[in-house]
Parts: sequence; C-alpha cells; structure tokens
Amino acid sequence: MRGKRYAIGLDFGTNSVRALVVDVSDGREVGTAVWNYEHGEAGVLLSRDPNLARQHPADYVKGTEISIKKALARARRTVRGFRPDQVIGIGVATTGSTPIPVDENGRPLAFRKEFARNLAAMAWLWKDHTAVAEAEEITELARRMRPHYLAKYGGVYSSEWFFSKILHCRRTSPEVFEAAYLWVELADWIPAMLTGTEHPDRLTVGICAAGHKAMYNEAWGGYPDTEFLAALDPKLAELRARLRPKAYPVDRAVGGLTEEWARRTGLLPGVPVAVGAFDAHLGAVGAGVAPGTLVKIIGTSTCDITVVPTDRDLPDIPGLCGIVEGSVIPGYYGLEAGQSAVGDIFNWFISYIRPLGRAGTHEALASAAARLKPGESGLLALDWNNGNRTILVDQRLTGLLLGQTLYTTPAEIYRALVEATAFGALTIIQRFEEYGVTIEQVIACGGIAEKNPFVMQIYADVFGRPIRISRSAQTCALGAAVAGAVVAGKRAGGYNSIPDAQRAMTGLRPRGFQPNPQAHAIYRELYPLYRTLHDAFGTKEWHGNLHHVMKRLIEIRNRVRQ
Amino acid sequence: MRGKRYAIGLDFGTNSVRALVVDVSDGREVGTAVWNYEHGEAGVLLSRDPNLARQHPADYVKGTEISIKKALARARRTVRGFRPDQVIGIGVATTGSTPIPVDENGRPLAFRKEFARNLAAMAWLWKDHTAVAEAEEITELARRMRPHYLAKYGGVYSSEWFFSKILHCRRTSPEVFEAAYLWVELADWIPAMLTGTEHPDRLTVGICAAGHKAMYNEAWGGYPDTEFLAALDPKLAELRARLRPKAYPVDRAVGGLTEEWARRTGLLPGVPVAVGAFDAHLGAVGAGVAPGTLVKIIGTSTCDITVVPTDRDLPDIPGLCGIVEGSVIPGYYGLEAGQSAVGDIFNWFISYIRPLGRAGTHEALASAAARLKPGESGLLALDWNNGNRTILVDQRLTGLLLGQTLYTTPAEIYRALVEATAFGALTIIQRFEEYGVTIEQVIACGGIAEKNPFVMQIYADVFGRPIRISRSAQTCALGAAVAGAVVAGKRAGGYNSIPDAQRAMTGLRPRGFQPNPQAHAIYRELYPLYRTLHDAFGTKEWHGNLHHVMKRLIEIRNRVRQ
Repeated sequence: MRGKRYAIGLDFGTNSVRALVVDVSDGREVGTAVWNYEHGEAGVLLSRDPNLARQHPADYVKGTEISIKKALARARRTVRGFRPDQVIGIGVATTGSTPIPVDENGRPLAFRKEFARNLAAMAWLWKDHTAVAEAEEITELARRMRPHYLAKYGGVYSSEWFFSKILHCRRTSPEVFEAAYLWVELADWIPAMLTGTEHPDRLTVGICAAGHKAMYNEAWGGYPDTEFLAALDPKLAELRARLRPKAYPVDRAVGGLTEEWARRTGLLPGVPVAVGAFDAHLGAVGAGVAPGTLVKIIGTSTCDITVVPTDRDLPDIPGLCGIVEGSVIPGYYGLEAGQSAVGDIFNWFISYIRPLGRAGTHEALASAAARLKPGESGLLALDWNNGNRTILVDQRLTGLLLGQTLYTTPAEIYRALVEATAFGALTIIQRFEEYGVTIEQVIACGGIAEKNPFVMQIYADVFGRPIRISRSAQTCALGAAVAGAVVAGKRAGGYNSIPDAQRAMTGLRPRGFQPNPQAHAIYRELYPLYRTLHDAFGTKEWHGNLHHVMKRLIEIRNRVRQ
Repeated sequence: MRGKRYAIGLDFGTNSVRALVVDVSDGREVGTAVWNYEHGEAGVLLSRDPNLARQHPADYVKGTEISIKKALARARRTVRGFRPDQVIGIGVATTGSTPIPVDENGRPLAFRKEFARNLAAMAWLWKDHTAVAEAEEITELARRMRPHYLAKYGGVYSSEWFFSKILHCRRTSPEVFEAAYLWVELADWIPAMLTGTEHPDRLTVGICAAGHKAMYNEAWGGYPDTEFLAALDPKLAELRARLRPKAYPVDRAVGGLTEEWARRTGLLPGVPVAVGAFDAHLGAVGAGVAPGTLVKIIGTSTCDITVVPTDRDLPDIPGLCGIVEGSVIPGYYGLEAGQSAVGDIFNWFISYIRPLGRAGTHEALASAAARLKPGESGLLALDWNNGNRTILVDQRLTGLLLGQTLYTTPAEIYRALVEATAFGALTIIQRFEEYGVTIEQVIACGGIAEKNPFVMQIYADVFGRPIRISRSAQTCALGAAVAGAVVAGKRAGGYNSIPDAQRAMTGLRPRGFQPNPQAHAIYRELYPLYRTLHDAFGTKEWHGNLHHVMKRLIEIRNRVRQ
C-alpha cells in the first residue's frame, strides 16, 4: 500500500468544479469533491442580453482550493493510510473557448477594483453568444482571404470562439480591451495559476484550445497571420505579437505546484501540473479514446471525439468542427464532432410540451417507448431543435416531425426524437468513414450513456454496432488525472505516454449494448429516409422529390405492425 | 298568424336524427328534436374489424317518427296556435354513401328474420372502410377502361362509396348479395318510406348520392355502363338493370306522405316529400350557397361546397371529390371538396398528446395561441394527420410539423395546427379559382365555425377575405326544410325554386370575421412555404430543394418578434 501513487484531475464545468483523486495503477477513483461556483446564476453571470454568459475568475481560484482539499479528505477516508504526498501529478480540464482578459502580469482584469463589476472583464464562458456578428465577419474574411483556415473548422468560425469574443470586446467594451495585455483560455490559466506561470512571458498554452478555437495550426505558422488579423482590426494584429508562439499537448508539464498552492491544498510543492485541455477532449482520454474508437459524450448535447495517427494522411473532413494535431493525444490528430442538442430535445418535449401532464415523465415515456418496435409509429424526426453542428454546421435549422396520424401518442413521439438523435449520430460516424476514418468501436459516456439504457439500445440498433459504456462516471476529471499521471513520468510512478496511462487507468463497464439484428434491419430502411430529409432541408446541393417519404413510412409501419 | 306555413327538415346523422320545423316565410326555427339511435355504439354497429361501420335501418324508422313528433310538440310550445297541418313540405338530408340492401319490395333485408343479425344486411354507413380492396379494383379498372368516370372524382374511387361496398358484399357475404334485389342509398330510402314508394319500380333516386358516389352522370348515360360493371363482376352488371334509369335533384317531390306516416306523426297525409340528398349538400343550401359563394362546413373534418351555373363551361377540376350537375341546386353544378381532418387534428393534440396535462384544454391553448402573432413561433405544419382529400386525394399522407426549437410551446404548436388547416383550406379555394370558379364570399357553418372565433379569425387572416357565419346552427336540417318548402310549391305557401327559398329562409350572423391586413401580409409569406412542403411531400411532379424553408421561417420569426 505504501507504494501507491495518485494523480488529481480537475474539471472546471459550467456550474461547478470537480476534483478527482485517482489511483494511477488501476484508475480507481478514491476521492472526489464538487464545489458549486458562487457568482451569478449557478455560476454564470447573466445580463438582459440572453446571449451573454460570463464567469467570475474568483470562483476558479476558490473552487480549486476547496475541491482539492475535500477530495483529498475523502481519499483519506476511502484508503487507509492515504497521504497527499502520494499525489504525483495534476491535470486540468475546463470548458472552452472561455477566454479571460488579463493584465501585463497575467492577472485577470476582473480582480482589479475598476473592473470588478464589468462583465467584459470576466471570463467569457463557452456558451456566450454575444459575438455572433464578429463570428460572421471572421468567417466571411477567412472565406475570402484564408479559406484553408476554415477547412479545419467545418467552414464556419463560431461566435463561441476565442477571436470572435475578443473582437466583440474590442467593439463593445474598448476600456476592457485596452486594459487587456493578453487573453488567456481558462484551460491555460488554471495550470498557470497553480504553477505560478501566469506571466505572459512564461505562460504555456495548450494545443487543444488554441487549435480548436483560435485557428492555431503549425502548418500555417501558429495563430492566424498578422495580415489576416489586421484586416479584422489592427489591434488584433498587435495582440497577436503577444500571443505565445507555440502550443503544447497535455503530456507536457506547465511547471510544478507553487509553495502557496501546496500550502492551500496540502499537496507537495513542485508536483507537476499538465498543460490544460477542454473537458470533452480529456473526457475522451478518460473514456479510452484510441484510433478506431469513437468516444461519444452524451448529455444535453454530444461531443464526439476520435483520434488518427499523425503519420497517416488525413484529408480535411467537411462539416467537422475541428481537426487538430495533438489536441487529444500527442502524436494523433484530434477529431471533434458533435450534436447541438440530444438530451435537450428530450427535455424540451418533457418540460415544454409536458405530454400527459404529470404522467409524462422521462421514465414513463421511455418505458412505453421501449415497448414499441422500430418503425411501428410511422414517425420520423430531425434532431435539429438547436441547429446542426456536425455535419451541416448550421445554427439556422430547426426540428421536424412527420408521420403523425390522429392516433399518434407521446411515447411514439418520444421514441422518434430519440431515434432522430441516433440517426444524427450515425450521420457523423458515416462522415468519418467516408473520409477513411474507420470507427470500429463506440464508447459512450456522460449522463445519458450512464443512466438511459433505452436510448443506448436504440443507438446500438441504429448504428448496427455494439456500444460500450465508460467505466468512470467522471471521464473528464479522469482524463485530466491521466494527463497528471503522464506529466509525473514513469520514474515517479506515473507513465511515459497518454496511451500507456489510459491502458492502466481507464476502462469499460462489463456489458455494453448489442445491436438487435431485426431492429437494425428496420433502421437500415428508416435511415435513408432520415438522410433524405436531412439533405433536403439541410443542404443546397440536394435536389429531388419527397413523395415517397410518408408512403414508405406507412408501408414500414403496416409491415411492422402485422 | 293563421297564414303561417312551415316546412320540416330531417337530418339523419351518424349518431342521431334531427327534425327541424322551420317557418317558410323567414326561416325561423320554431321546433327541433334529436333522437339518438338505439343500436350499436352510439348508433353504429361495429365488429372486430375496425373498418366496419353499419347501422340498423330500424333506427331510421323509429327516429323519424319520434323526432318529428317531438319537434312538432316543441313548435306548439314556441308558436301560439301552431298546428301540424301548417306543415306544407318535408325534406331529407342524410349521411352517405350509406347504401341499404333491400328485397324485391324495397324492404331492407335487415328486417327479415334470417338477416336480423347479419351485419352485411344492415345499412353500410358512410365511414365503413371494409371495401378498400374493391375501391382500388374499381379505380384501377376505370383508369384503364373509363378514365372519364374518374375525372369527376379527383381520380380515385373511394372505399366509402356505393359500388365498392356492394362489390365487397358480393365477395364476402354472397348470401346477402343474392338476397338483395337492389341497394338503396339512405338519402333515397327515407323519402321512399315516408311516401310509400319503396318498391324498386316506383323508387325515386337523388342525383346527389348517385352523382357523387355511384358515378351516375347523364353525359355517359347514367350509372356506369354494363360492360364496365361486368368487368368488375357479372352480378354487378345484372344489378345495373335494376337501378333506376334517372336521378333527380331536391326540388322534385318523391310523393306525398302516406296515411300511415300521417297517423304516426300528426302531419297531413299527402304532404310532399322532396328527393333526398346528403347532409353536406343540403347544409350548403341551408347556409346560403350560391355562385361565387363557398360554404365550408367545419367540424372534425370539412366539407366545402359551391355551385356553378350549368350554362357555364366548367372543366374537370383535378383533385375535386365531385362535380355533379344538380347535386346541390337544380340548374347548377354542385362542386364538392373537403379536408379529411380539421377539428380532429386539434382534438388529437389535446386528447392524445395531452400537452400540459389537465391545463392543456382547447380553451386554454386557443387563448394562449390567440395572443401570438402570425410567424412568431417559427413553426409550420401540414394538416395531413388523416390524409388529404382535396386537392391531393391521397390517404397515404401524414402530419408534419417543423420549426421546433428547444423553447417551442404547446400553444405555438396548437396555433401551427390551426394555421395548417387554414392553409389547406386556402389551397382548395385556390384550386377552384385556378379553374375559373371565383370565390367571392366564404360562409362557414358547423361546430368550429360557430364556437371557435380564434380559428375563424385565423382562417380570415390566411384567406385575406372576410368569412361570414351561417345564422342557423342546423344548416343541414334547414337545407332539407328549404327543399321541403320548394316541393310544396308557391301556391301552397312555399317557393318555386331553391334560390327563392334560400333568400327567404337562410341568413348570416350579423358580424363575420374580417381579415387583419398585417396578419394577412405575414400569411402571404408563410403560405408559399406551406405550399412548397405540400407539393414536395404530396406530388410526384414537384422537384426542388428545401434548404430555404427553415431559414425563411427563422427570418420571419425574428422579424415578427422585434
């Protein structure tokens, strides 16, 4: 027992921060603690503008201290003889793009008295959409000037991303923009804080945030070039000179824990802290992502991540939100896709439509829907209530339901909505495979994967392939701990590489979901109809007729009902 | 007061029969009574086959006597000095096609002991769909042999109609078919019963039932020719020889009330009884149908009826369920269209989906929906939950809803469903006008027209023209009374023609629904999108792309919300 070594994974979410203490030998999670942010509404600062979503950096500082201390206390209760000095490395996962304006010393402007109540000086949370106009401007300019920038982003630069937010600040809060020496992603700022490397000259930035959100790519010399940024705004070109020239993957240490943070947490000073990355990407690591394995993090929306060795020739894949070298595992391209709404669609039906009143719970409808056969309802839906992220990259799309009769029930609609998200997920898998990225295994994690076997069985039946569920319920924090174990190094009891650490520390639940061949056969008839609607309403290229769609659904329905 | 003259209208519905006593001078309804059929479920005989719907003719006989007697009793209480001998004529409206197998004396087989429990010997109610296969067979044969037969029926012969039902009986209940000397529509059998003219040699048949349901047309010599019927079944060709050679409109008397019926009702013997017709067609008469006026009977479904003078050259109108000379008013083509479901769609949403549970009543959702502006929800629906009768004549179509977000509410969906039925109604009006049948006025009647101003205002806004509501709540029975007043003749205190009687006896509610110009302007933007979906899913001819549909709806929504 004395030889046990542990890593800590920190996961900064939208409403709270979690610390997880993990046994590096086998991935056992021996202590965890969640601390809810204190500021705003459940940690989110809001205004009259529904697009605005900010966070106070003070929550990150306080949350780091409290969550680590509590997680260590829990570990002490779980493992006899546990000692904080057995923690050999720390990893950090965060939301993003969540850039924070900082001063010449790397200190968030929000901590200055004059900006203490200025929303523009806060962290601009990932889901802040105030920069819609700036995102369109960046997209337009890139299309004209630098189309290759967009080729890695599905053709559209988002309002959620780094430069959109900074440009919006420049336009709407010049006093904050002027005071900001640099903008630092939350994923980079936490490791810098823990290691005392916040100063802009010492800062280490991660390839995950820079590559997926700030158009950083070594192929074109890092961040977007000065000429391009100057065409947006000369001040952005000036900012570029202050951005770090190189970005790093999560197997590199940013530095060692400071004396102060060692004192505040009870950990040893000098414990290495890994380069930070986004929660979804480290979540994929914690779930066991590898070449040929797609990790789906399924909750209110999904994030789908896989990796491809960098020695393979990988083309641009249209509609993918990001292909970034080293963003998940060093030596591999990180490929990111996703669906804008999954659980959110089911929640909409239950919470906004409230079918059957109080009797219409998720549990009741899923239970009734599970008794239906595929095709039995005659319904078909599109999963676009919140737009389509992959493969259409189009927010200006909406939901669709067809096949209703005078006898259609809420359980039938509930099932059709679940099937629609499964068809959307299959469309992503097919897009990967169309471009030579074979998906041999699907691993699911996240709230829906863990708690909703009805949904997962439909996914397996629609995909026609087994789905395994991640063993950990905290894959993001676990992935961060994996990074912590790697930056500790083998000599300290950790690992030399992310794949080595994954093999030891991550795993799957014993049983997954096997596709039912009869169900899959029906879904192979239904999916082409989904795809027809998808292409008809979602693309400019499609040209055709839909006269067969309702008739085919009726025909399948009648056949299945017999 | 002594000079007052009255007419009686009888209306044989699906669940009950109504008698209405009407003052022929001004249309005042002085007495009415409803008698619910005694047999089956609410008057409908059912079996394990959900397509089967029959009625026992005994209900018609008993219902006639009781409803007339009660209506006369009520009239006596309403009008001081009212006397049954002031009734100068009787008209009859019924459901249809509702054929009854009768013996050599015109007596329903159902009254014979050996057939008393045989469902095939009963009246085959309009909504009996057991003859789907036979309808397809007739349609197929007509397409090959007699395409002009179908041109007056929207191209499809229905399972609800006369020959489909008879052929199905021949195939499935030969003992009934063999015993049946003739098949008589309910609309013809009631007047025959009242006047003692049931005998096949004396029977008078109406042009409304024969023309709309039995392919009777003087242009091709009456009923379908022997060769055509023989190709279906030689026994049908034999039956043709026993069908009456000529059919008549409702301004002709079948005969005078028999002594027996005079005794049973208290009316004078010899009172003339008009040729019968369908409820919708006489409902149009009672609502004031005239050239340029479209009467919409709006309930669970709609029936839309207008007339065109026979001296005008009227082309076949694709998708119309029927164009029959004299079926509504003698000297005019009767044009019939309709929507397979209107109120039924709203009822489905409330009763099957039960949004908001108990709080989701028609009243609550209509009230919330009335506060929304057109276009504000971003939703668009197709009104095809029960297929599309006009103009697509296709049962194999289903409902569609698009535009859903994560915030779409039940009231928004309710309004979208109402708007979809209004767009469907506009499509019918436009089809009339495309073929030169101008619609200058829309008169609505039926349950929704009378009780649902929210729906009617949307219809006026979508149509961009005023809608008036029929004064009578019993337009079918009133229309029958109009026919009764005409067969009485002017000398007896009645009228010489249906239009003369209509002018005196029918009317409109003082205020109708005026279109709101702002609302109409938005609907003029939304309707082309409805029509695009309508054509894309409903026709083989459409060819195109739907990429703009969701985006246009979002654009309109954003503009309206500002």
